[in-house]
Amino acid sequence: MKSDFIAIPDGDLCSPLGFEASGVKAGLKKSGNPDIALIHSKSPSSAAALFTKCRFPAAPVQISKKHLAKSRESYRAVVINSGNANACTGKSGLENASEMAKIAARELSCDAGNVLVCSTGRIGVPLPMNLIASGIPAAAAALSRKGGGDACAAIMTTDTFPKRLALSMELSGNKVTLAGMAKGAGMIAPDMKGLHATMICVITSDVAIAPRLLQKLSNEACEESFNRITVDGDTSTNDTVIVLANGMAGNPALKSAGGDSAKFAKALSYLMTELAKQIVLDGEGATKFVSVKVEKAASKKDALLCARTVANSLLCKTAWFGADPNWGRILAAAGRSGAKIKPDSFELYFDHLCAVSGGMASDVPECKLAEILKNDEFTVRIVLNCGDADCEVWTNDISYDYVKINADYHT
Amino acid sequence: MKSDFIAIPDGDLCSPLGFEASGVKAGLKKSGNPDIALIHSKSPSSAAALFTKCRFPAAPVQISKKHLAKSRESYRAVVINSGNANACTGKSGLENASEMAKIAARELSCDAGNVLVCSTGRIGVPLPMNLIASGIPAAAAALSRKGGGDACAAIMTTDTFPKRLALSMELSGNKVTLAGMAKGAGMIAPDMKGLHATMICVITSDVAIAPRLLQKLSNEACEESFNRITVDGDTSTNDTVIVLANGMAGNPALKSAGGDSAKFAKALSYLMTELAKQIVLDGEGATKFVSVKVEKAASKKDALLCARTVANSLLCKTAWFGADPNWGRILAAAGRSGAKIKPDSFELYFDHLCAVSGGMASDVPECKLAEILKNDEFTVRIVLNCGDADCEVWTNDISYDYVKINADYHT
Repeated sequence: MKSDFIAIPDGDLCSPLGFEASGVKAGLKKSGNPDIALIHSKSPSSAAALFTKCRFPAAPVQISKKHLAKSRESYRAVVINSGNANACTGKSGLENASEMAKIAARELSCDAGNVLVCSTGRIGVPLPMNLIASGIPAAAAALSRKGGGDACAAIMTTDTFPKRLALSMELSGNKVTLAGMAKGAGMIAPDMKGLHATMICVITSDVAIAPRLLQKLSNEACEESFNRITVDGDTSTNDTVIVLANGMAGNPALKSAGGDSAKFAKALSYLMTELAKQIVLDGEGATKFVSVKVEKAASKKDALLCARTVANSLLCKTAWFGADPNWGRILAAAGRSGAKIKPDSFELYFDHLCAVSGGMASDVPECKLAEILKNDEFTVRIVLNCGDADCEVWTNDISYDYVKINADYHT
Repeated sequence: MKSDFIAIPDGDLCSPLGFEASGVKAGLKKSGNPDIALIHSKSPSSAAALFTKCRFPAAPVQISKKHLAKSRESYRAVVINSGNANACTGKSGLENASEMAKIAARELSCDAGNVLVCSTGRIGVPLPMNLIASGIPAAAAALSRKGGGDACAAIMTTDTFPKRLALSMELSGNKVTLAGMAKGAGMIAPDMKGLHATMICVITSDVAIAPRLLQKLSNEACEESFNRITVDGDTSTNDTVIVLANGMAGNPALKSAGGDSAKFAKALSYLMTELAKQIVLDGEGATKFVSVKVEKAASKKDALLCARTVANSLLCKTAWFGADPNWGRILAAAGRSGAKIKPDSFELYFDHLCAVSGGMASDVPECKLAEILKNDEFTVRIVLNCGDADCEVWTNDISYDYVKINADYHT
């Protein structure tokens, strides 16, 4: 699968042809860290997007949706601020999000309707528009083919490292590049469908592709990537995945499934999965990366229910932090998930070691199981033996630091 | 309402006529604390019960259900061990639970089918039957009218204080007494229906009542009490509510709703609610007791969805620990709960202070809101303005100590 595409060392959003980016300090964050990112395409781009399904969608989510409702072509830029979510801010919040697009459009000499807007940070605080009004022009002035790293740094909130990846592939003899950046460490939970998502991710590509197919492939990739992670089970008001494709690679435009589209879809799925895993690795206070695999479930829905309930269980996550095999908690979570379970044929593995067989303790000594849980990364594999549906969800443990970070969070 | 019954100072399970109890050390707990409790009624009792709906019901749950399936009369005893859940222990676990009833029955000269069994503690470890075989006879020998406190202490696991209450009332000129004890501090979540529950609670009464009515009133009381609490969102494999009523008060037997039955129902509901609140107060690592009230929801289901999602939100619970009003997290949780929401007419109050009005920050300064969150107890009141359904759920914050207790839990 990976042979269809290769990673670009130190690649970023500007690796695809025609994209430039920047990240500047506008003063929105008390820390003084960069807080405005701008991504610009020299050519009009097709766009696909997925937004949070929280019933309090933030103002930038509402404005971006409005812009996308008119057309899926001719997009030129994404402007993002961190340090303030512009959520639950009423009519003036909507005006402010709209104004962000207008300022960027003026600087970039394009239509405001062709600019998409994202915000991330504290909810319910009015956006300081004086800082935005000077910050966006500064970001526009700083746009550069070398600005991908700065943009990636400017969208971070509680993130401890930037998350980005770029891939290249050949489609009908043309070199096509695909790149993405993401932010997110808390308020992360898998609950996306169609136009729904839970963090901020911007993906750029120089591929030529019909907007409708781009949306379809984005939905599918999201379902198996961002929709499979959870840090704390809390879905955000703001979060957004935006994919821009400007066609500058010059490949024959992708219009329907199969062939080159399948090749591109694989790369897109890989890109989103890697970015999603980076979010989990950077989960607030996390010390361990845990894959929860559910196998032989009665249905896909059951597999997901079971995996997500275990991955979100506070008792499981704190036990993992303590490297305590305490598998009873995993069974208790699976047992309340609503998934069909045959207690007498339930199996549970930590990596390759069997902890539970036939619904009871295996003969593997607890100290052996505990050795696996001391690792930074391990797999909890649940075999339900009720059917043939599988799924995998990625999560982390809950530590003292998670509580510390979240008991006193002011951007 | 309270005038219909009064609390008995220092009352316990033995306050009702005809009950005796004990709590002894059998050696099941590493700590050496008491770990076997026995409750015995001199007269045959009607029984009602609610059990966990986890799909891995523990062996004692399965055995108690089996006993109750035959009859709801003639019950004589409840035997409980702490320090071992006897859950996920296979056929030998079932045999062991059955054996617990048999040993108690032999000591009490009654039928094993008239003894109910509960266990609480670590999941997946075989019950050390040699300790049980000597512990239950010791508990039987220790039975006394003064043993209620000992029984209550013997069922504790991570509990930091015993939970008990006794009430008395007059029904048609007869003094009727009702008492209960409960345990539970973690693996507590509200998810009971009909014969389902999430902690261990034993209630005794000398009331004369038909078993069917007793079950109906117990279901109703449970729905508005134990079904309204959450500590960590995790439902246990074991937990059980058992109500025994031996009729020794001599009141005209309660058979249908209304009159004396309504009076008794109020007392039962009050008793369960107080015990449920004590569990929340003793929530693992909890520093604050939080009432989450949802008002004017489109339906009762919506009200409960919204209240429970907020009460279980890790981001809300850690913010409360930090006395951070951060109401955006409450809106985010309400927004993902699935309850109908009109963002523009959403209101949120901390006690009497308005934090959010019309979906936006009110003009109450954040420092005033923070003052309320510094208290040991406060109410988060959410007004959805979508209908006329209300509900209230009780929960607590999540602290460093919660993580500490659960990252290293071995009874």
